[in-house]
Amino acid sequence: SFAKLLELKAQLGGDEGKHQFTLKTAKGTRDYNPKQMAIREKVFNTIIGCFKRHGAETIDTPVFELKETLTGKYGEDSKLIYDLKDQGGELLSLRYDLTVPFARYLAMNKISNIKRYHIAKVYRRDNPAMTRGRYREFYQCDFDIAGQYDPMIPDAECLKIVHEILSELELGDFRIKVNDRRILDGMFAVCGVPDDKFRTICSTVDKLDKMSWEDVRSEMVKEKGLSEEAADQIGQYVSMQGGKDLAERLLQDAKMSQSKQACAGLTDMKLLFSYLELFQVTDKVVFDLSLARGLDYYTGVIYEAILTQNGPAPEAGEKGEEGVSVGSVAGGGRYDGLVGMFDPKGRKVPCVGVSIGIERVFSILEQKAEASAEKVRTTETQVMVASAQKNLLEERLKLTAELWNAGIKAEVMYKKNPKLLSQLQHCEDSGIPLVAILGEQELKDGVVKLRDVHSREEADVLRAELVEEIKKRIADV
Amino acid sequence: SFAKLLELKAQLGGDEGKHQFTLKTAKGTRDYNPKQMAIREKVFNTIIGCFKRHGAETIDTPVFELKETLTGKYGEDSKLIYDLKDQGGELLSLRYDLTVPFARYLAMNKISNIKRYHIAKVYRRDNPAMTRGRYREFYQCDFDIAGQYDPMIPDAECLKIVHEILSELELGDFRIKVNDRRILDGMFAVCGVPDDKFRTICSTVDKLDKMSWEDVRSEMVKEKGLSEEAADQIGQYVSMQGGKDLAERLLQDAKMSQSKQACAGLTDMKLLFSYLELFQVTDKVVFDLSLARGLDYYTGVIYEAILTQNGPAPEAGEKGEEGVSVGSVAGGGRYDGLVGMFDPKGRKVPCVGVSIGIERVFSILEQKAEASAEKVRTTETQVMVASAQKNLLEERLKLTAELWNAGIKAEVMYKKNPKLLSQLQHCEDSGIPLVAILGEQELKDGVVKLRDVHSREEADVLRAELVEEIKKRIADV
Repeated sequence: SFAKLLELKAQLGGDEGKHQFTLKTAKGTRDYNPKQMAIREKVFNTIIGCFKRHGAETIDTPVFELKETLTGKYGEDSKLIYDLKDQGGELLSLRYDLTVPFARYLAMNKISNIKRYHIAKVYRRDNPAMTRGRYREFYQCDFDIAGQYDPMIPDAECLKIVHEILSELELGDFRIKVNDRRILDGMFAVCGVPDDKFRTICSTVDKLDKMSWEDVRSEMVKEKGLSEEAADQIGQYVSMQGGKDLAERLLQDAKMSQSKQACAGLTDMKLLFSYLELFQVTDKVVFDLSLARGLDYYTGVIYEAILTQNGPAPEAGEKGEEGVSVGSVAGGGRYDGLVGMFDPKGRKVPCVGVSIGIERVFSILEQKAEASAEKVRTTETQVMVASAQKNLLEERLKLTAELWNAGIKAEVMYKKNPKLLSQLQHCEDSGIPLVAILGEQELKDGVVKLRDVHSREEADVLRAELVEEIKKRIADV
Repeated sequence: SFAKLLELKAQLGGDEGKHQFTLKTAKGTRDYNPKQMAIREKVFNTIIGCFKRHGAETIDTPVFELKETLTGKYGEDSKLIYDLKDQGGELLSLRYDLTVPFARYLAMNKISNIKRYHIAKVYRRDNPAMTRGRYREFYQCDFDIAGQYDPMIPDAECLKIVHEILSELELGDFRIKVNDRRILDGMFAVCGVPDDKFRTICSTVDKLDKMSWEDVRSEMVKEKGLSEEAADQIGQYVSMQGGKDLAERLLQDAKMSQSKQACAGLTDMKLLFSYLELFQVTDKVVFDLSLARGLDYYTGVIYEAILTQNGPAPEAGEKGEEGVSVGSVAGGGRYDGLVGMFDPKGRKVPCVGVSIGIERVFSILEQKAEASAEKVRTTETQVMVASAQKNLLEERLKLTAELWNAGIKAEVMYKKNPKLLSQLQHCEDSGIPLVAILGEQELKDGVVKLRDVHSREEADVLRAELVEEIKKRIADV
């Protein structure tokens, strides 16, 4: 193993036995430096702003849950859950998503309706692909609506939210694929998939965004033992894309219309599109029968948003290539049974939600920032307290404290006698717009020399008026 | 084991085999509900505001680190570290604090100076005391200054920050105890503590805030094998409290002045107090020789802030009782050797920092909010889009989308035909100040009835002017 190799290396000495190899973060994780944090803060503000605009509250849950809370919720993905070591006491696992902890929270607190968002890190022992924004520790931004309501209204709001957020983040064009688990299950039934194979065939269909139809067909037939005939019938359906019209057409489809489940899903799909028209977001939404989503807990509408800027937009009714080159940036759906799995009395709370996967968003915006000439500021400092002469440390500290106490964002160099040039250079480097310069003469005159870093203009300001003058200057920028 | 007991219980049936017992969070952890989150957001805004006012950048690190990154940094507390299960690959542990990851980050990225804050959760398998705000998962808010600077200037800024934050949070009176590891070590040396017992005796002294001097003395003598004479000499010193004057007196102390280390610490203590005077924070700062702090990595100044509202303020030079009843809410110090432990070349980066432990702050502010008549709002919704008549769902959705698109925070009920009363009730419950009411007549007239929830006044507003009118009303509140 790698650990043993390192141990060996350490024993062999070299570098005075210092453990150089420890100088890394865990596999699939990363630090955020101040520039990345500045971008992250902006993205979060946009997303939180949207969630608040829609009247959501927020909650938080612990980063680990009882292991059994997560058991049986994620289907084939369960193997990716991080467990904690048994150090005596409860068996614990790191959360895999925010949805299962949310359902646990609702059941535990007997909450039957809430609109909440939750932004936090989740953990998956997946194969990392960090250049493409796939990590083992990553943020999810979840918005969910729990409660018994009239059909498709909260569902439509979730899609509206995805539309708003992706538009505001200015990531280029995007598309939101929509489908329904009931339509998928009905389709599997009428195509002749045995009941006990629904979930596993669904998992295979879910791979259509990464694999060709031929490979998916082969997995169904060879690995999962589906008949070739059934696979080919599925193949015909999953190539279909459209809007309300497609839902209407499928309701008339000789085979599909035999499934009650499919009809219920298709009728709701029509209703969903009528609400999406009112919300004016149908331009980006496609009803796509190939969308499956891997997770076990969905029971109704499902959706997934992808950025399309890297590939050409697909023709209507044609399976586009965009899924191959561009990752999903949001996904979600309806899960009416999950809370009931936790409730002692099996009491159900219908839920629908969406999760924004922002790691890819961060990557894109980081690349944009790199390419742009505009500098990303990592502090908000408004003024640097400086001096041109020696022995003024105490005066600088006194003035800095005055500014802090007045709510001004101020910095001072931690040197007894810093050079004026190095103080000014720090302002240039970190984008501080103003310098308050103290000297013997200024102290005698009861003034401070206020310098504009950009224009290099200087003006004496009465010490008593300095705070107001700084506030005025900052407001003008 | 508990797990086996549960298994047995499950096998014995009852409640149709449903696992009721899973309905909890892991020991020592808790969820935050929307009200608690509203308070948490306010506290974070205060703290982040202060950190930004002092020109700090921010970073983030993963929640787990390589196990060996944490090894040997925490002394006797290492047993409290959470390990992850070995699922193949690296051995990982949950972070115990934010300081060690920060040092790892600096070494890994070869950063020799930075002023950064980091707000994140840390994990300790400690005995939880949740009613007193002691959890196994809890937030730390860290501010650190790394870099080679003139003595005690960054150290003084850290104390100024503690002073600002505790004042702004309005938690009642507080006190900041200050000491220096060099003074402690010098004191141990002149009192006759053997070199190899410094750290363990230091750990025992650290318990003076929870144990009486008699118990501490007994642990030193009986458990740690210190001579009674040495213990009694320590006892004399650790009862001393004061300010700059105490540092000056100890510099003249016949015994203490024999230690070079102690003298260096005492000289710096004098300098620190002179800067604290310039920052006008000496009213809350006490030089206290009993302050030790448990962590291994401190090398210079150490400090700890406690709230004193529950106990009487101690007289100068008298050991107060406040440490027993009131927990510490902030702590920190100088750790000049930690980064070097990670650097392949042992290159040192001097650091000083402070950590605000806000769980206790949350508890206090939650209790305050409970006691207060003022309701804590958990959403920021400005207007509810409602109707008094049936069959207006589509019109409500259309108007709501218009408001969202204009940046107004708006809610609409997810019902086809909600009662006006239940729509108004929701506004009362959640503090929404305005209702935009649609009816057949309003639609015909191209107006919306805008209702003030508090005053119950209603006025027709032209639909085209609705957004502006709402913005105006909100600004007036």
